[in-house]
Amino acid sequence: MSSHRTYADDLFPQEVMDSGTATPPQDYPSSTSSQSSHQHYLESANSRIHVGWVTSPYEAKEELDTAISGHCSRLGEAKYTFVAFPVGGVVRGFWKPVEGAKNEPPAIQLPDVQLANNLWETYVTGRTSPWIDCDSEDPKFAEISEESLITELNYIAYMGLNSMTIQLNRISSPRTAALFNKWVWTRNTRFTMWIQLPSSVEQCLDFDPQSTPKNMDIWTIWANFRQGCYNFSGVYLQAMLRIAGDLPDEFVDTKRVDRWKAEPLGGFVVETDVYATDRNGMASLSSAHISFLRQLWSSDDLRILVDPKTDTFLYNVTLKAEYALALRQAVRDVNYKSSESSTTSLAVSEYKDVLQAPLQPLSENLDSSVYNVFEQDKIKYDAYGDAVMGVLKELGADGRKEIVIYLLGGGRGPISSPNNPTKVNVPRNGPVTIGVYIHGTTILRAEKDYNTKFRQKGDHLKVKLYIVEKNANAIITLRYMNHRTWRRRVTIIESDMRRLPEIARKMNYHQPDLIVSELLGSIGDNELSPECLDGVTDFLKPETISIPQKYISYVAPIMSNHIHQTIRAQSIPYLARGLPSHGRLQPELNGEGAWVQLYPQGDIINNMDQIYVVFLSKYISLSRQTKEMFTFQHPNFQHSTNERSAFIEFPIDRNTDIMGFAGYFDLHLYKNVILSTVPETHTPGMMSWFPALIPLREQLRADDGDTVALKINRKVDQGGVWYEWSAQLKKPNGEIITTPIQNPNGESYYMRM
Amino acid sequence: MSSHRTYADDLFPQEVMDSGTATPPQDYPSSTSSQSSHQHYLESANSRIHVGWVTSPYEAKEELDTAISGHCSRLGEAKYTFVAFPVGGVVRGFWKPVEGAKNEPPAIQLPDVQLANNLWETYVTGRTSPWIDCDSEDPKFAEISEESLITELNYIAYMGLNSMTIQLNRISSPRTAALFNKWVWTRNTRFTMWIQLPSSVEQCLDFDPQSTPKNMDIWTIWANFRQGCYNFSGVYLQAMLRIAGDLPDEFVDTKRVDRWKAEPLGGFVVETDVYATDRNGMASLSSAHISFLRQLWSSDDLRILVDPKTDTFLYNVTLKAEYALALRQAVRDVNYKSSESSTTSLAVSEYKDVLQAPLQPLSENLDSSVYNVFEQDKIKYDAYGDAVMGVLKELGADGRKEIVIYLLGGGRGPISSPNNPTKVNVPRNGPVTIGVYIHGTTILRAEKDYNTKFRQKGDHLKVKLYIVEKNANAIITLRYMNHRTWRRRVTIIESDMRRLPEIARKMNYHQPDLIVSELLGSIGDNELSPECLDGVTDFLKPETISIPQKYISYVAPIMSNHIHQTIRAQSIPYLARGLPSHGRLQPELNGEGAWVQLYPQGDIINNMDQIYVVFLSKYISLSRQTKEMFTFQHPNFQHSTNERSAFIEFPIDRNTDIMGFAGYFDLHLYKNVILSTVPETHTPGMMSWFPALIPLREQLRADDGDTVALKINRKVDQGGVWYEWSAQLKKPNGEIITTPIQNPNGESYYMRM
Repeated sequence: MSSHRTYADDLFPQEVMDSGTATPPQDYPSSTSSQSSHQHYLESANSRIHVGWVTSPYEAKEELDTAISGHCSRLGEAKYTFVAFPVGGVVRGFWKPVEGAKNEPPAIQLPDVQLANNLWETYVTGRTSPWIDCDSEDPKFAEISEESLITELNYIAYMGLNSMTIQLNRISSPRTAALFNKWVWTRNTRFTMWIQLPSSVEQCLDFDPQSTPKNMDIWTIWANFRQGCYNFSGVYLQAMLRIAGDLPDEFVDTKRVDRWKAEPLGGFVVETDVYATDRNGMASLSSAHISFLRQLWSSDDLRILVDPKTDTFLYNVTLKAEYALALRQAVRDVNYKSSESSTTSLAVSEYKDVLQAPLQPLSENLDSSVYNVFEQDKIKYDAYGDAVMGVLKELGADGRKEIVIYLLGGGRGPISSPNNPTKVNVPRNGPVTIGVYIHGTTILRAEKDYNTKFRQKGDHLKVKLYIVEKNANAIITLRYMNHRTWRRRVTIIESDMRRLPEIARKMNYHQPDLIVSELLGSIGDNELSPECLDGVTDFLKPETISIPQKYISYVAPIMSNHIHQTIRAQSIPYLARGLPSHGRLQPELNGEGAWVQLYPQGDIINNMDQIYVVFLSKYISLSRQTKEMFTFQHPNFQHSTNERSAFIEFPIDRNTDIMGFAGYFDLHLYKNVILSTVPETHTPGMMSWFPALIPLREQLRADDGDTVALKINRKVDQGGVWYEWSAQLKKPNGEIITTPIQNPNGESYYMRM
Repeated sequence: MSSHRTYADDLFPQEVMDSGTATPPQDYPSSTSSQSSHQHYLESANSRIHVGWVTSPYEAKEELDTAISGHCSRLGEAKYTFVAFPVGGVVRGFWKPVEGAKNEPPAIQLPDVQLANNLWETYVTGRTSPWIDCDSEDPKFAEISEESLITELNYIAYMGLNSMTIQLNRISSPRTAALFNKWVWTRNTRFTMWIQLPSSVEQCLDFDPQSTPKNMDIWTIWANFRQGCYNFSGVYLQAMLRIAGDLPDEFVDTKRVDRWKAEPLGGFVVETDVYATDRNGMASLSSAHISFLRQLWSSDDLRILVDPKTDTFLYNVTLKAEYALALRQAVRDVNYKSSESSTTSLAVSEYKDVLQAPLQPLSENLDSSVYNVFEQDKIKYDAYGDAVMGVLKELGADGRKEIVIYLLGGGRGPISSPNNPTKVNVPRNGPVTIGVYIHGTTILRAEKDYNTKFRQKGDHLKVKLYIVEKNANAIITLRYMNHRTWRRRVTIIESDMRRLPEIARKMNYHQPDLIVSELLGSIGDNELSPECLDGVTDFLKPETISIPQKYISYVAPIMSNHIHQTIRAQSIPYLARGLPSHGRLQPELNGEGAWVQLYPQGDIINNMDQIYVVFLSKYISLSRQTKEMFTFQHPNFQHSTNERSAFIEFPIDRNTDIMGFAGYFDLHLYKNVILSTVPETHTPGMMSWFPALIPLREQLRADDGDTVALKINRKVDQGGVWYEWSAQLKKPNGEIITTPIQNPNGESYYMRM
């Protein structure tokens, strides 16, 4: 547990041991030494959960400004691990502007040299002066406020603090946001900014029962401020929720609370009037408050500040410690992790919210880690085995002696081929090879199982297996596998499957009874399975069966400021500037002799107009249900077009920012053998596919009662396939907002055939 | 020592213990257990130093292709830690093209599934077929070679190897380079490519005693190839030097050997005919070979390949092991490090070749680490103390009672001010404050020392000290220091020093006898010390002394492919795209509400046209001497211009690529109290300044006998100061090559006043 200890432990002696009555978490080991283990757990929680104290006018004397160290130590005794202190010192911090008079705020008086750098960083959060109001209706005072705020931000940077906090007291704070917008984007002083939101809309200085919109809420206040800061990184700009005695509805209604899971939440400010007294006479929280805190306690990295609203704590010596204790008791087991974790989920957790796309350095390593996991996806291969078995049973029922099966390509065959330089994210030893030969083995095992169960000795059904593979490298592996494992039973055909009819005619190969393929991307058709399989149709018999028979893609709108920022923030490092994009254009050799990929549409549009594969984590779905998008069936004897068009509507039940649509699919292998990545029907244990993500260029603000629709087209031309999409927002009053069409003509995302 | 063990140890049992006769390094602890320690050291060296074996036609039978594991194990017994194996398998690798006949190389036959991924990665280097010759005079064969090389590179990527090697057999290989250029820039398969160079120019297929230039050398062959690959990252594209029995002159002449310290060197290929037999009958290396290897053995990350030139090793069972042993004995103590290292040098070593410049994420942390080191630069503050003492002695000799001293600004005062948004790399608690108050204390300590030594009690000399500081944040610290440490003796003036004459007149301040400042950058004047000090001239008395009295900048041409690449490769992350550049332009608010810095000159020109501060490491100086650039003297009573112009010539004594010029300065504080960063006269122990770097846009190829000159102007206008520079190369035949003028009009690097 010592790794859970923080620097705070060194400064702040925690002499008052916690003899709290909290129940340890369920997964907590109850060993023989449970007494000391329990104590150990509580100690660890105390240092893990950071509770800070807001220095208030009740206790603040001028001398504190040069005695920060003692102030911290006393707070440490009450088990606070940091303090929010007026960054201009006490006199300036608690100055009261005089109405009408010439307002000249006191100068900053908080000497930095009284504490070493690292102590300031660890223990002190700079609180800007509460009287600052850049959005004041008094233009003179607004100007003084702006100057004062910049002075204080400068001083925070100068002192090298790691964090600061400011309190918003208005519904609308455009000037404050504009000031922060300029600061965060044009200064490279990086400290975390905790933006404290009002505890309720009605508390706001500019609240007006007449003019304030009925569905205005705290989330909207935050979202407007964040947007005013051009959605700056959530690592530095975070919301802090202020909790008062009365919780507003939006902090009780689960689906509205959930929105904070999709926002950069820094923590909470708890006003002391939320505390009641329990039967032991200790400060305690109501169950509604506890429940709210627990619902959003996603990580022990969150911070809680206690903001005293009365001076009671000055007279009741244990009260301060009780405030902190009650908060730790509320949240300390939410993220308590036992030391053991499954290796598999650990491997996957590395990919939380990581964009899998070319030109993204993180994605380059996918092959060596995630694909190693995927190769062990027994669930998927078992399902393929079951499906083949099902076909053998059905066809073999007439007593035939032979069934001809063609295994068509690896999952990424058409795309991973080295002859196609546009897809640079080639998994090295990924599904291409492994997939093919595991499927090969799966098919031959199904043959054996079928004969064992359903045939007499001497009356065996023989599978004649062909494997078609385009990847010249994979062919070397397949030949070796055929020699070593399959006893040369398999006919290996090095070719694009779309040339199979021609080759098979020339070579007199048998027509298939069954074709098996796994050419599926995260929304099914996006690795061009329809186009590839259509290429063999002319070689099929009218009764040829395809595994899979069908796949359907599904979508749902999602909210995630984090993923929106992550997509925008992708940049192209110098060493990657010659790598092919996903769009139509190819890299060019410039006059200097350098290979360079050009992006006439601009980097940001290029980033936003891609479909990504993401293990979604910091997001919420905005629909209780996913809805169907495109369906494909095989064999496609009629040569029906593979172009598609869909318009999929979702009602919106809370104020929100829609960042895009998550994509899933289900895969009907044969009859009732189905694999699914759709949340509602996800195949347990299967991990071969992460969700797809169809982003919008800008987050789309929607209000409770609106309807959002995804308009998406799948287009096909000679060279490849691409999607074009946009969103449409319908207001209850009939007003319609349409976003720009993304990826027009496949300029940013084009899947070459 | 177990941390020195590598994966190789697990695969390759090292049963044959090394009882070698090598002397352990001098710093090796000779304890009581020296016998076993020695053994331990040797074992560790064996696993630290990677020696690999080149599989040759002498031993290669076709069966090897499917028995790589056994091959590796046998090599492991002879203490090889990796193997260079034909990536197409033995048959293809050792195929001999038939002259004139239809050349159809054998197919690739090296199955990947025989070894786990990580074993391929760790133990096997893919060697391309030696018969491949893309630059063959036979156009048909050149074409076959290109196809074959691409096929083999594809297969290396598919297998997931970590490294490959190809041998260059020509002086000029433009087609091979063009093929690699396209591969490295447009494929994101990242494996290390070891380009083996010819063992001598005369060995090359295209060597011609008549037409080959007399000063052609192996370095030039490499530099041309690297340039043909547009200087791709040295992490992936590395030179491997082939060592045969006769060492060419350039591998003996130290100054020519040194060039490889400025290149991405991957290691060596040692042909077995370099070995002689020592008096014990063991294979051994000549002292010339050992000396060459040791001179370039910069790190144990280098690799050595042993390339058998005869089949003797097939009959002499211990010979293979002796080859490896002799190599390890040669180099194993060069980089042997004892476990203790000084903390100071460790802290500095983190900054090796790190560009200190805005928009460079690494540089953002400089404040918290390097500046912490700088603050402890006792040498510098002692020298300032000595200089002040010198002045007190001289002026105090007349028995006067008072001396008026003005301490003018922190080192970065005019630039680090928060009112000046252009310099974003503000050290948080760096030299600004600390510098000022340490200097303040230094001055008052000098007063005390002077009085103790030279004055009677009651006849003390009193220093009247004024400190002028522009930084509003630093003023808060200074006031606190004045209160706490200086007993309110100091008059603190919050102002830009250029307004001092005006303020002093108004306030009736005394005129200074001495002004003290430390406003110096890595080449002296580049933090605008001349402009700042000129601003107080009108307030001085004719006899006022300035500390410093004078500073001179110095330059020398340098070679460093690594630093050239590093400067080019800087990119601007999304979160930094609103940060001010160093140029004249300021960030702008675009139509979307985002702050963005525009670079009309392009990112690369912007990167190359900056002056950087770099702790130079992977570089060599191309001149035995640095030469003077600019001189400034203070006080500048004549108000002489601070514009400067210099043309500084250096003879070049070897073929080389000039990447730019390193800059230094010396600082004449008072009389003989001098501080210097110039290599020849560097003040021992002083660490406040790293060298400056004045880069060229492109590396400039110069030949032995050429002369290079730096043309540089210091220009001044209303708003600031900038340098413009270019290089001029003069050939012995009088031909002159001039590079473009960099940073015209300060568009990329402009120091605002």
